[in-house]
Amino acid sequence: MGNRQLCLARRPEGALHVDDFDVVETPVRRLADGEVLVRNTWLSIDPSLRIRLHARTPDGYLPPLAIGEPLAGLALGEVVDSRSPDFAVGELVSHTLGYRDLAILDGDAGTFGGYGAPTRIVPHGFPAQWFLGPLGSSGLTAYVGVTEILRVAPDDTVWVSAAAGAVGSLVAQLARQRGATVIGSAGRPSKVDHLLVAFGLDAAFDHRARPLTESLEECAPEGITMYFDSVGGGHLTAALDALRSGGRIAVCGAISGYDAGAPVPGPHNLFQLVSKSIRMEGYRAGSFNHLSPAMQEEVGDHLAAGRIRFDERVFDGLESAPAAMVAMLHGDHIGKTLVALGERN
Amino acid sequence: MGNRQLCLARRPEGALHVDDFDVVETPVRRLADGEVLVRNTWLSIDPSLRIRLHARTPDGYLPPLAIGEPLAGLALGEVVDSRSPDFAVGELVSHTLGYRDLAILDGDAGTFGGYGAPTRIVPHGFPAQWFLGPLGSSGLTAYVGVTEILRVAPDDTVWVSAAAGAVGSLVAQLARQRGATVIGSAGRPSKVDHLLVAFGLDAAFDHRARPLTESLEECAPEGITMYFDSVGGGHLTAALDALRSGGRIAVCGAISGYDAGAPVPGPHNLFQLVSKSIRMEGYRAGSFNHLSPAMQEEVGDHLAAGRIRFDERVFDGLESAPAAMVAMLHGDHIGKTLVALGERN
Repeated sequence: MGNRQLCLARRPEGALHVDDFDVVETPVRRLADGEVLVRNTWLSIDPSLRIRLHARTPDGYLPPLAIGEPLAGLALGEVVDSRSPDFAVGELVSHTLGYRDLAILDGDAGTFGGYGAPTRIVPHGFPAQWFLGPLGSSGLTAYVGVTEILRVAPDDTVWVSAAAGAVGSLVAQLARQRGATVIGSAGRPSKVDHLLVAFGLDAAFDHRARPLTESLEECAPEGITMYFDSVGGGHLTAALDALRSGGRIAVCGAISGYDAGAPVPGPHNLFQLVSKSIRMEGYRAGSFNHLSPAMQEEVGDHLAAGRIRFDERVFDGLESAPAAMVAMLHGDHIGKTLVALGERN
Repeated sequence: MGNRQLCLARRPEGALHVDDFDVVETPVRRLADGEVLVRNTWLSIDPSLRIRLHARTPDGYLPPLAIGEPLAGLALGEVVDSRSPDFAVGELVSHTLGYRDLAILDGDAGTFGGYGAPTRIVPHGFPAQWFLGPLGSSGLTAYVGVTEILRVAPDDTVWVSAAAGAVGSLVAQLARQRGATVIGSAGRPSKVDHLLVAFGLDAAFDHRARPLTESLEECAPEGITMYFDSVGGGHLTAALDALRSGGRIAVCGAISGYDAGAPVPGPHNLFQLVSKSIRMEGYRAGSFNHLSPAMQEEVGDHLAAGRIRFDERVFDGLESAPAAMVAMLHGDHIGKTLVALGERN
């Protein structure tokens, strides 16, 4: 039985291309004591992988992928063989060894949260793949941003960038559920319509249509109190200008710079932090795994009651993963980009 | 009786020059009801004034000074005439209408903290000018940075930039009093000696001697947990690289960019905020006036007991204020730069 894995074929320059990747088949070794074999069923396609395709990654981040190295990413799968007392064949788990058909994981429950360690998933009637999306990593990133970093309150005016994306769409809707006024931005008119109609945001704009500052002045004439940043670059600059005194910024990513091989200069108006007493805080959801149960309860309730919605774009088969990545980074779709392997379950 | 005021003669380009200012004498008008006339005795020479000498100031900041307009800044003086029931002749007050011999202020105690409103000073045996320094604005800026923004604890390793300056020297010593390991940087070897010998810091380095990253690696091989920033530019970039996960940055200024007419790009490595979950917060002491009594008690105790020290460089006479400003921005002296008017009291 062979294992197909998506590997880095060459170092991408600028925008990602499907030819930057190869599918390579390798034999599957026997399990050691404590290990489990997982057949992946869903792959999460996330922007942050782009960072690891550069020859260098930022200090403190995961290391760069070498040419020929298999990609890694969040995935969901079924235990098909187990030499761990903690996992039985047939159980559903999430883990970080995606972009391949089969993953061998250390089943030791003691390594929970570690790189490659599986987490048992009990779907409670929700679609399994939501545990990569609104009830998984996307949900936790959004929940932590809203509740821990920004601490959104009813009198806040929150600008959410990339509000049609997997994380942004949840941030925007969770902030709205907390009573805040929410302004969303996205990169296509059709997405802007979706923000207003499907998510019911208070205002939305196409960040490519006009200078950001003009759009923000129109949507929030008295300024914003909070900005959720997954874009960086000119978005962050505009937010610093639009924020009121005492404002807050949560930073979960900087997708505008991910294609750049060289470091991108920061905003020229960072002094606004001082002149307007602004707090700016970066974070990664992985540091907040202890909040997963609270997130799943809150987000799960909203989803079950139809108060928030979650959109997906599903690509089929491992060989479609490069196209899924390119489309996701290009902003082609609304919501979460996923790859389904084998029959969808 | 004429009033001499320091006015902006021309818009400075690049580094400040003494010829950028004029002393202009104007008549003194009669007091209106509620007003007090103050004879200034001490002027505080602060880097932030440089920001207001540009044709534009950052959004949220004080407006730019016009050519010919009198400068303003923190000052200490004696009430010499009063039509306010709240202030008697002979009382000592601090206020924001410095850079002149005489200031007319609205004595209404209800406007406490407003632009130009006086604050009564009772020196309790401390030198009067300390109420512009360690027991005034410099002290409050340092105290808020240490206690509210950074929340320094004993296991912290704190890098303080401009640690020989008025604010930095207090931040470094207050952080040490709280048990933290403190690394100070300054721009001259003699200042570095002072940081080690007079302030007893754990480590210190000359930021001009070597690349900042090298110095920081040597002084804090395991990284820093906090950075106090009054410099910006390359200092901020180096701090983002040197901070450990979960680190914090307090920003009270960005003196490295104050001479630049055009906006200065921000750090290229701002993504470290995300990869290392860093919180970065700007502030101005003026928003924390309610903490002045607590600050005066804590800092006053340390000063009285000789646990922290405060250095001053005093220039004499209003006409020396331009030279004082140039020297302060050039980093010529250790501690606070002041101008004494008339006989020192």
